[in-house]
Parts: sequence; structure tokens; C-alpha cells
Amino acid sequence: MTNWTLAARAAKMNPSAIREILKLTDRPGIISLAGGLPSPKAFPLNAFTEACATVMARDGASALQYSTSEGFAPLRQAVADLLPWDVNPDQVLITTGSQQALDLIGKVFLDKDSRMLVETPTYLGALQAFAPQEPVAVSVASDDEGIVIDDFAAKAGTGADKARLAYVLPNFQNPTGRTMSEARRAALVAKAAELNIPLIEDNPYGDLWFDEEPPLPLAARNPEGVVYMGSFSKVLAPGLRLGYLVAPAAVYSKFLQAKQAADLHTPGFNQRVVSEVIKDGFLDRHVPTIRTLYKAQRDTMLAALEREMAGLDVQWTRPVGGMFLWVTLPEGMNAQNLLAAAVERKVAFVPGAPFYADNADPRTLRLSYVTASSDEINTAIAALADAIRSTLAGA
Amino acid sequence: MTNWTLAARAAKMNPSAIREILKLTDRPGIISLAGGLPSPKAFPLNAFTEACATVMARDGASALQYSTSEGFAPLRQAVADLLPWDVNPDQVLITTGSQQALDLIGKVFLDKDSRMLVETPTYLGALQAFAPQEPVAVSVASDDEGIVIDDFAAKAGTGADKARLAYVLPNFQNPTGRTMSEARRAALVAKAAELNIPLIEDNPYGDLWFDEEPPLPLAARNPEGVVYMGSFSKVLAPGLRLGYLVAPAAVYSKFLQAKQAADLHTPGFNQRVVSEVIKDGFLDRHVPTIRTLYKAQRDTMLAALEREMAGLDVQWTRPVGGMFLWVTLPEGMNAQNLLAAAVERKVAFVPGAPFYADNADPRTLRLSYVTASSDEINTAIAALADAIRSTLAGA
Repeated sequence: MTNWTLAARAAKMNPSAIREILKLTDRPGIISLAGGLPSPKAFPLNAFTEACATVMARDGASALQYSTSEGFAPLRQAVADLLPWDVNPDQVLITTGSQQALDLIGKVFLDKDSRMLVETPTYLGALQAFAPQEPVAVSVASDDEGIVIDDFAAKAGTGADKARLAYVLPNFQNPTGRTMSEARRAALVAKAAELNIPLIEDNPYGDLWFDEEPPLPLAARNPEGVVYMGSFSKVLAPGLRLGYLVAPAAVYSKFLQAKQAADLHTPGFNQRVVSEVIKDGFLDRHVPTIRTLYKAQRDTMLAALEREMAGLDVQWTRPVGGMFLWVTLPEGMNAQNLLAAAVERKVAFVPGAPFYADNADPRTLRLSYVTASSDEINTAIAALADAIRSTLAGA
Repeated sequence: MTNWTLAARAAKMNPSAIREILKLTDRPGIISLAGGLPSPKAFPLNAFTEACATVMARDGASALQYSTSEGFAPLRQAVADLLPWDVNPDQVLITTGSQQALDLIGKVFLDKDSRMLVETPTYLGALQAFAPQEPVAVSVASDDEGIVIDDFAAKAGTGADKARLAYVLPNFQNPTGRTMSEARRAALVAKAAELNIPLIEDNPYGDLWFDEEPPLPLAARNPEGVVYMGSFSKVLAPGLRLGYLVAPAAVYSKFLQAKQAADLHTPGFNQRVVSEVIKDGFLDRHVPTIRTLYKAQRDTMLAALEREMAGLDVQWTRPVGGMFLWVTLPEGMNAQNLLAAAVERKVAFVPGAPFYADNADPRTLRLSYVTASSDEINTAIAALADAIRSTLAGA
């Protein structure tokens, strides 16, 4: 019927591979290692229930009214206090999940065809969030310690083609689970400052370390050179959609304008509830319970991989925090093709290809160890090994 | 310190005139007729408090988990059921306030320099939401019945310059308070279909009618020709940021992709709470109380204007619903200049100029009758008349 002319970008908006996969995982009996869903066991239900009642009783009318685009002042202060460097709450912008922070960053930094640098591989949701601005995403070579500095410099571009930003996820990266080393962080911050390229530091998982805290954030090393993003989705719960960014004063007002245009403000009720939950050091007591839970499930998955993949030429990362690990299949295999065989065996994962800005490695896939139980992880990894064996036999 | 190259659009992102004005209105003692804040007297606090407790007790873990980008299924069904035409819930997308629906519409329809048609004047927030796509907004002449059809056709453009969309707010428009007539709606829908121009129908105030329901929405007349936007902000409360759009199937999937990239999904907790509040016909009982409240305050403001502006060459609209009326000052006056004199007299309003896409009329200003009490409205209109008189005397 309608035959409207849409924006050029709309032609590229198609159902994502991951969305389609996640639909499969809703089928009864499927164990999903695909999604990035935090374990509901980690949600502090009682604290939320009490905070909702407290906020409604004390500030109900204010919580339900329009509020400021910057965010609820006590929550901005709480965010500043949580971060391990000297942050002025005036530089904190509360966002509707950290996904929205990515949308705002795209709007402020990227024109059509702007060059932007990303890790190899990188967070798929960031590629999607930046896509409406139609940038050119360029993969920078990355090893076990993170982004490779020489390649970062080589890909930085010059003049009109100079990279507008470099997007990195230093702690327990989505999708690989890897963590950028202390030395690499220092080198990246120095090189980015030298080249005057803004670093976009995404840190949703940083508090979910298992044995020791990761090195200091990039932003702590050069606050004027970094736009930092954080989230309450992994340390409290994602359903309230509360994230934040910390931006240098020189660009903060641009983010604020973009935020106001995008959704006026993040729901004030949600900001007040989270502010109420986290006061008095709640996160100091709560986050360790998540670390313990996820560490045990990571251990289960690593042990299951050792056991089940024995004799198969399969490799995987060994994350020291976060939610994901990254698997590389034997030479010649394709994770997308493996998925059908895996789903037949009642297990789902996310193929790695969509996480690459370019030159995808089709042998890769992402596994989450936080949503399924330990028993389910054991069953699922055995099923995955069976699918690999069967695919190798059929090849 | 930082000297980064930002997106071209960022140069245009500056603190809005209205934001700066609203800061003034926070000063103690100022009566604000400026903001579009619904009266907190209209917020159903008890119903929200109960719904929060119910949702947490029954579905707490689901409410706090990630959820689908389309929105919570029972809420999509409820929206479809509320609307006065045959709506398939599959075509309903829940948004983070209807401001976000505007952002998504810009992303799906507008390229840089795309022509878009708007009313004269139009909703400032829509201009801001579309701005990141850098379109060319063209004002279509508008009279008391709404957009003028001949001018709509004359401004439609052709070929690559053909308008990508026409944005209209038919009921109790923000900022003017005017309502599009039955005949004008029919003519606009027919002409837009003939020219194949998508109509964007924004209807946040439609339920806030005072004596009789407004004519049927444009979307009810040609669902395939209209993207319809609604909101719970004015009938329940804005602080939860819940809006929705209804899109023809041919473009729905594009909106869904844009939504996913923008913030993954609207907070599931909020969707469940509103779904819980409105089940069993709550709005049928609640909205009439808002109509009664706002009608009384409109009456107060109209009476005050008749009384206080007597002898001054001031004109104003007489809205039959909604939250705003529109004032035109005497020839030669400038509402922006008047504001300083008004604030001295402890009353604030919004100058009309920012609501024009082009050729602003500097004599115009917007007044809200919903936030201030009737006593405050009387005091404020007297002060405003005094400011006008004083400015005229000084001129």
C-alpha cells in the first residue's frame, strides 16, 4: 500500500541476526547461552519493593512529574561518588540505559561517513546504536590485552578522514570477555591524547570482577580525553533502564541537548528508586553476591569446556569477570551453520560474525555463563560439543 | 583542553530558549505559566503505589529483567483497545515517552536536507527531536481549523525535494491550543494520500477534551497513511516516560530496529505498572477528573484574560481541551522582551518564536493553564497585563 521514501539509513535497518536467534531460545526446553540477561537471582527484589513504596510515599508527585534532562541530582552525586576518580556530578548525565548513551554519542560525534575505530570484535549493540549516523566503522587489531596501539595509530586517519572517536570496552569485554591490561590502558590513553581522538569507554561489567579489581578506567587517567559510560543494569537490574555517561565539560552541553531531544529525560521514578536502593552502601553489600554467583558459573563453564571439548580443536577465552566468553571453532567451521545443529540439541549461542565491524571470523561464537544454572551449563556445553563433533563428522 | 571535531549537527545543539526560561521559573515566588507540566493533582498516586507493589510481588524478576523492544504485550493490547479504530497490537510500539517516538520517526524518515512539513506554529519539541537528522522544516500556513490544504499541496515539493513527512498535532495543539476541524481532517488525509506524503499525527492531549470529544484521529481515517503517536504522560503521569506509536506494517519493522538501537526497550517495570493501573477501565474513571480540573482552570484563565486585558490590543485562542492557549500581543511588541518585565512581576511564560520553523511571529507567547492553581492564574494574568501596559507605556 504505502510506498514512502524513507531515510537512506532505513534501508540498512533489518531484523538483527541476534534478535532472530533469541526468538529460537524462547522455545521450551532450549538452554540459552545466547542472551546477555543477568541472572534474576541477582536482582534485589526486596530492596526494590521497599524503595518503590518509600519513593511513592515520600515523593510520589515529584517522581511522577516531568524532571530535568540531566537526571535526578542525588543520583548524579551517587554516580560521581561511585567512580574511582574525581568526578564532578555536573558532568554526569543519566541515560535511559547505557544503550542510549551510545545513541547520544553517535549524534554528538558522528556525521555520515565519519571514521570511527572499534575493537576486533566489538559490542554489536554499539555498532547498531551508531548506525543511524551512517559512520564507517574500522576494526583495530586486538589481542589478549586489548586494542593494539600501533594499529590504532595506523588506522587513526588524517584530515577530514581522521577518526571521530574510538569505542572500547576495557573490562570483561562483550563479546570476548577479555580485559585490557594496565600497560595497554596507559599506552592507549597516551596515544589517543597525542592524536586528539576521543576515547569512548564503555564499562557496564567493571564491577563484576572475580578475583581482583581490573586496572583503573581510561577516564581516571585522562578525564578530559574520555567519555565514560556506566550502567546499573548489571549491578542491580536492567529492567529499569538506568545508565549514565560522564563527559568533559567541553562536550557535556551537547550531550544534554541530544538527550533532551531524544526522550526529554530518563524516568524520574526509576532514578529515585535506584537512588533510594543504593544509598547507605547497598552496592558494597550486594555486588559481591553477584561476583560470587557469576564466578561459580564461569568456573562451571570453563570446567565443562575442558571436559567436553577434549580432543576437539576448539579454543576459548578465560574471563576474569563479566558475563561472556568467546569460543573459536576448528578451522573451516562456521558458527552460524553450527547453530542449527546446536538448537536441534536444545542449546543456543550467538554466532560471532555480527560483532565484527569488518572481516568477521566465522569460526567464533559467544557464550554467556550468567543466565543458565550450573546444571544447565553442563548439559548445554555437552550438547554443544556433540553438535561440533557431529558437524566435523559430516564435513 | 579538548578540541575534538564533533558532528555538524552538534554545532546547532545549544541550550534551548525554553530551558533557560524554565530555570527562571524555579525561583521562589514566580508563578509559572510556562511549562507544560500536568497538574500533580491529576496524578493517581494511590493507584501507582498499589500497582508498584502488585507488580513487584507478582512479576518482580520479570519486571526488572531485559524485555522486548516492541513493548510489554498486555500494554500493547491495551493501547490497541484504547484507540478508536481497529488497531492490531502488532503495530503498536511502546516508546520512552512520545518524545522518543519523534526521535525514531526522524531516524526512519529523514535524511540530511530532507523536506518536512509542519504547522505554523508547531511543537518545539518535535523540531528538536527531528533536528539531529538535519532536515529542512517548512511551515505550512495554518488557520483556526488547522493546516491549510492548498498551502500543504503547494509546499509538498516534488522529486528529490518532495516532503518526507508532514507533522501535525490535530487536538488542542501545543502551542496554540487549536483543534483541527472535521472537514480539515478529511481534506488533509485525502490530500496526503493523493500526494503519498506520510502524516505524523501527534495526539498527547486528545483525551483532555472539555465539552465534547474532538473529531476522529487522522489515523482512524487512513491507518495506512499515518504514523500515530500517543502518550500516557497527560492522562496518568509523565514521570514514567511512556508513549507509543502505531505504524503501518510496511514501516513498523524499521521503527522497531531504530528503537532497539536507541535504548533496547522502554523500562519493563514502568510498562507493567501502567498496564496494571489501567486494567479494568481505570482511565474511564480517572480521565474525567482531569478534564473537570483543567476545564475549570481554562475557564479561570479565559475570564482573567477578558478582565485584565480589557482595552489592550491583545488576542488569545479559546481551546476546547488540552493544556495551552496562545496569546498575540499588540503590533510592535516582542514577547521575548516582555518576558523580563513579566518575571520582574513574578510571572513566567514561553515566548512563541521558538515554535516556528521559519518566519516567527515575535508577538506570540504560550500560556499553560494546568500547572498553576486558579488563584495563581488570576494573580499571574493580572501581572502579565501590568507588564504589557508598562511596556506599552515605555515604548
